[in-house]
Amino acid sequence: MRMLDILEKKKRGGQLSKDEIAFFVREYTAGSIPDYQASALLMAICLKGMNEEEAVALTDCMAHSGDMLDLSAIDGITADKHSTGGVGDKTTLIVAPICASCGLKIAKMSGRGLGHTGGTVDKLESIPGYRTALSNEEFFAQVNRVGVSIIGQTGDLAPADKLLYALRDATATVDNIALIASSIMSKKLAAGAQNIALDVKCGSGAFMQNKEDAEALAKLMVKIGKSCGRNTAAVITDMDTPLGTHIGNALEVTEAAAILQNRGDAQLRELCLTLSAHLLSMSYGSSYDDAYKQAETTLTSGKAFLKIQEWVEAQGGDAHVLSESECFRKAAVHSTVTAQTGGYLTHMDTHKVGESASLLGAGRAVKTDSIDPAAGIVLYKKTGDAVRKGEPIAELFASSDEKLQAGKARFLEALTFGEAAPKKRPLILGTVV
Amino acid sequence: MRMLDILEKKKRGGQLSKDEIAFFVREYTAGSIPDYQASALLMAICLKGMNEEEAVALTDCMAHSGDMLDLSAIDGITADKHSTGGVGDKTTLIVAPICASCGLKIAKMSGRGLGHTGGTVDKLESIPGYRTALSNEEFFAQVNRVGVSIIGQTGDLAPADKLLYALRDATATVDNIALIASSIMSKKLAAGAQNIALDVKCGSGAFMQNKEDAEALAKLMVKIGKSCGRNTAAVITDMDTPLGTHIGNALEVTEAAAILQNRGDAQLRELCLTLSAHLLSMSYGSSYDDAYKQAETTLTSGKAFLKIQEWVEAQGGDAHVLSESECFRKAAVHSTVTAQTGGYLTHMDTHKVGESASLLGAGRAVKTDSIDPAAGIVLYKKTGDAVRKGEPIAELFASSDEKLQAGKARFLEALTFGEAAPKKRPLILGTVV
Repeated sequence: MRMLDILEKKKRGGQLSKDEIAFFVREYTAGSIPDYQASALLMAICLKGMNEEEAVALTDCMAHSGDMLDLSAIDGITADKHSTGGVGDKTTLIVAPICASCGLKIAKMSGRGLGHTGGTVDKLESIPGYRTALSNEEFFAQVNRVGVSIIGQTGDLAPADKLLYALRDATATVDNIALIASSIMSKKLAAGAQNIALDVKCGSGAFMQNKEDAEALAKLMVKIGKSCGRNTAAVITDMDTPLGTHIGNALEVTEAAAILQNRGDAQLRELCLTLSAHLLSMSYGSSYDDAYKQAETTLTSGKAFLKIQEWVEAQGGDAHVLSESECFRKAAVHSTVTAQTGGYLTHMDTHKVGESASLLGAGRAVKTDSIDPAAGIVLYKKTGDAVRKGEPIAELFASSDEKLQAGKARFLEALTFGEAAPKKRPLILGTVV
Repeated sequence: MRMLDILEKKKRGGQLSKDEIAFFVREYTAGSIPDYQASALLMAICLKGMNEEEAVALTDCMAHSGDMLDLSAIDGITADKHSTGGVGDKTTLIVAPICASCGLKIAKMSGRGLGHTGGTVDKLESIPGYRTALSNEEFFAQVNRVGVSIIGQTGDLAPADKLLYALRDATATVDNIALIASSIMSKKLAAGAQNIALDVKCGSGAFMQNKEDAEALAKLMVKIGKSCGRNTAAVITDMDTPLGTHIGNALEVTEAAAILQNRGDAQLRELCLTLSAHLLSMSYGSSYDDAYKQAETTLTSGKAFLKIQEWVEAQGGDAHVLSESECFRKAAVHSTVTAQTGGYLTHMDTHKVGESASLLGAGRAVKTDSIDPAAGIVLYKKTGDAVRKGEPIAELFASSDEKLQAGKARFLEALTFGEAAPKKRPLILGTVV
């Protein structure tokens, strides 16, 4: 088999066979196929597409390119969730204890990643004492005992995806649905859980800017998951406005704890119950409505809040910060953004809100950047809200005046005001099961 | 300017600006843009195309990426010809002395290259004593004195094209008209001649398999040449059967000498007169018909034959081999291919005929291969000819029995016989001026 023939075939719009895809993934990961041939193939895929069959094969090969996490030491039904990424997304911190309270086993490795705020692991690290590095034995033992553990990525999961993603990033070949779907799903497959709920974000704060693309991505990921023997469901959710009200690492832990105590943003609560219901329904074979009720009851009863406390303590963290958020380390400086005129907040460019959080110190621009756990944004007003002149719109937190001013300037760029109330968008735009 | 933005633009089908193309060529040649970004762009160009304006800009930038040959030391009007490559193409050896006899100045550097037979320089080197390496001073002095000199490539002409061609070859991105046209024309522009005649081959022995593609390539090259200030014309010619009757280095010199002595294949003669007429017409501003008559008179009178003798002698070669071809070194072994049945030779897969010549020892598979000047094929029958059982079809020449057998086996694969006479194809399929 020759890479040149594979390139020629895809250039002409042909369907690559399983063997051809396996050859490419294997030889590229081994370093036998040079970057310049791989990038030419990626561009041809962007322009000629890949069908479902090819995407399934690519995902499967990338998943098997490194370690496949063996969760057989875990006693029970394993579940995992994944979000395609947005601003203020702290759902994992809420869904994991809800599902664990209902008996599912959440053994999750999570990335740090780049972006507006840190990854789930960075958020958890804002809790004093929380250990994100456990041995495999500790990890599995805690999942068996408590029902949930989230740690930093270990092992060599889907190395082919890591290599290909870096190459896509450098060759303008990121935005192809098949490549995005296989990248995400290869890591989920390698991470071992039997039941997978996907949250595909859509709008100005997400990679997918419109609903059609988000839907296509959701459908393909569900197809891939099922074809590879995992129960998979996806929701498509609005990311044209930040999720909830808190953006930043410690701030998001605080908001998650509030939801688990039956306070806070109703839409965020609904999304977490929806994701939990999909996982419970797939895992137990119950109807979606029954599963939703099970999740809701667990949340309302306070069991899920007890579960997050148990989990955080088991992992060495100070659970007091969950009930008394003032125990969190405070940001050195803060500033309130107020409305210059009355009217309506008609749009929030959520990508810019994310950039603002990053400038404040909540996110990383490059891998080696350190994160300020206290930095971030608390929103008092969101898209669609009426505002009076002088009314506070948000509070910004940072470690220095310089960062505060940089973050504030970007935050102000994100806001659009108008005289008429905009139509409120629903949070959940679609479901693929 | 960022390569990523250029990639994104071409991926979306946008037109690259002159500045963007200049940035790409400059930075890639300098090694600042990595191969993997360049190959992704090449694939995007293959799939999204380049318009004329982009192709002109790419050609101009690649031409200027290295030395631009300065022909100002030459007293008179300079002319050059180029063939896109085929089997048995010895036209340069005939066109150059015809045009030089008519007063044009042919200062030509020619490649060795890979292929079925050697390049023009390899053919000339089959003449005992012919020096293909002259100093620039000797080269220009001979052109001024004799009117023609052909030497091996010196200097660093269009290095961007060399780099990009190697990358295209390794990434299945060769077959794009704009890339092919800019590759050829960048070298022609850098080679300095004011008047350029192009011979675009089409058929089973050529890169372009059909007339439409050949026409598109011819039109684009003429457009590029003119846009860059050179008089340019192209003919589209049939390469579904070898050109003339002799294939191989010394063998082709012999056939060229025969044409210059008013013997040999009528179609080959006509093509050489046509190419000469285009160069003369462009150079002197005469009508094509007048220019054709001028070329024909020169050929018929024997002046062009005197010119090739003068040229070869000036360059140290033994001009006797031109009139007495038996003076050429003989091949060690030869074999006659005869018809197994009577009928018509309905098709000659000319690519396979070329491969046969290469297997016999006339061509190179890799750059370091040495060429056997005596190896090759003399055709007694060509496509469309009637054959009787046992009648000789061709004579094959090689330096060893092993090569002879390998070449013969491939040659036999090239032949198709039938009972009905096939339609004869004209040699000249079109003209672009």
